[in-house]
Amino acid sequence: MMAIAARVGIGTSMTLPTLEFWFEFASTYSYPAALRIGPMAAALGVELRWQPFLLGPIFQAQGWDNSPFNIYPAKGRYMWRDMERVCATLGLPFRRPEPFPQPGLLAARVALVGLDEGFGEDFVRAVYSAEFADGRQIGDPEVIADLLGRLHVEPGPVLARARSDAIKSRLRAQTERARALGVFGAPSFVTADGELFWGNDRLEAALSVAAGPDGR
Amino acid sequence: MMAIAARVGIGTSMTLPTLEFWFEFASTYSYPAALRIGPMAAALGVELRWQPFLLGPIFQAQGWDNSPFNIYPAKGRYMWRDMERVCATLGLPFRRPEPFPQPGLLAARVALVGLDEGFGEDFVRAVYSAEFADGRQIGDPEVIADLLGRLHVEPGPVLARARSDAIKSRLRAQTERARALGVFGAPSFVTADGELFWGNDRLEAALSVAAGPDGR
Repeated sequence: MMAIAARVGIGTSMTLPTLEFWFEFASTYSYPAALRIGPMAAALGVELRWQPFLLGPIFQAQGWDNSPFNIYPAKGRYMWRDMERVCATLGLPFRRPEPFPQPGLLAARVALVGLDEGFGEDFVRAVYSAEFADGRQIGDPEVIADLLGRLHVEPGPVLARARSDAIKSRLRAQTERARALGVFGAPSFVTADGELFWGNDRLEAALSVAAGPDGR
Repeated sequence: MMAIAARVGIGTSMTLPTLEFWFEFASTYSYPAALRIGPMAAALGVELRWQPFLLGPIFQAQGWDNSPFNIYPAKGRYMWRDMERVCATLGLPFRRPEPFPQPGLLAARVALVGLDEGFGEDFVRAVYSAEFADGRQIGDPEVIADLLGRLHVEPGPVLARARSDAIKSRLRAQTERARALGVFGAPSFVTADGELFWGNDRLEAALSVAAGPDGR
């Protein structure tokens, strides 16, 4: 009883455990993670911090100018088949994006705006579904505007803010912080203690460590 | 009832479903897979085909002359921490081998001999435990001889056969077959239908697909 009272902070949410969810819109395995993380975290009483970033600069520092799934064909062939299986197991529709990877820069900037303005999590899920379930071109501003409209968000002001210097430099700072945390791929999860977990199949472990021994 | 009778082949084991287990002795995540796969497969009625191979030639074809965990330091740091967590969760002791990767050529050749002669699976587990639990040098023929002795196998004839041209060319053929199956890392699992699964954390899925809908 004491532990539960401490956990919920007696009427506040200040002491809820947290988990950072680092995602990149080009990343295939970020799609199932993004679509299932919300209810899973809620069930464990873990508060999520949604963290868009760009893998491109991190991959470039490793000498890659493309997705490793394109650079290493055997790994790529495997990943597409594995994604089909993973999504089928989770009951998620899946379609291979063409071209791959999709350019996620604009969507990542809009996600930062959305996370400030209260529609971020819905927008992130909408982008991943558009890309990996519906085969849409997420680099196209008209597609992004359409997704915003479906969330009853007026696209014009959001797209203008997404292209502001403030948001551009915030996204660069996100990517720098990801690198400083040791992130080298997506999706990644980081606990308040700095424990890093990589991959959709580490989501359960990351949430369990974040929730701690007193987790719901 | 019919399905079960068909599965067990009415008194024979000819129709048991099978799964190929592709492992490389330098591979960190092959250690937990090798130590847990036997009882898991038995519980599902899946017959294992143990398949030693070498990742070196496959990595070289991708332009890597070392373990990707050494080439990409952020990925390497993550892997060592993740291995600690994975082994702790499974109740397996874990020690980081020095140097890494360990040279697994001799052990792979001895494993081929052992799989012919009936002590292969025990030998594979003994090598992985020596390397990842006890910090021993598995490239040292004296260490391999000691492991064989503990299995009550006379080392001399086995080591001589392991260095024969026949075994050397069988190991090369193993590696070629792995590549032909699409294997690009270890551990990997391949069903009779050619479905490829990569990684210790895909072992459950691979066994489940191998066992099929009528699996025990």
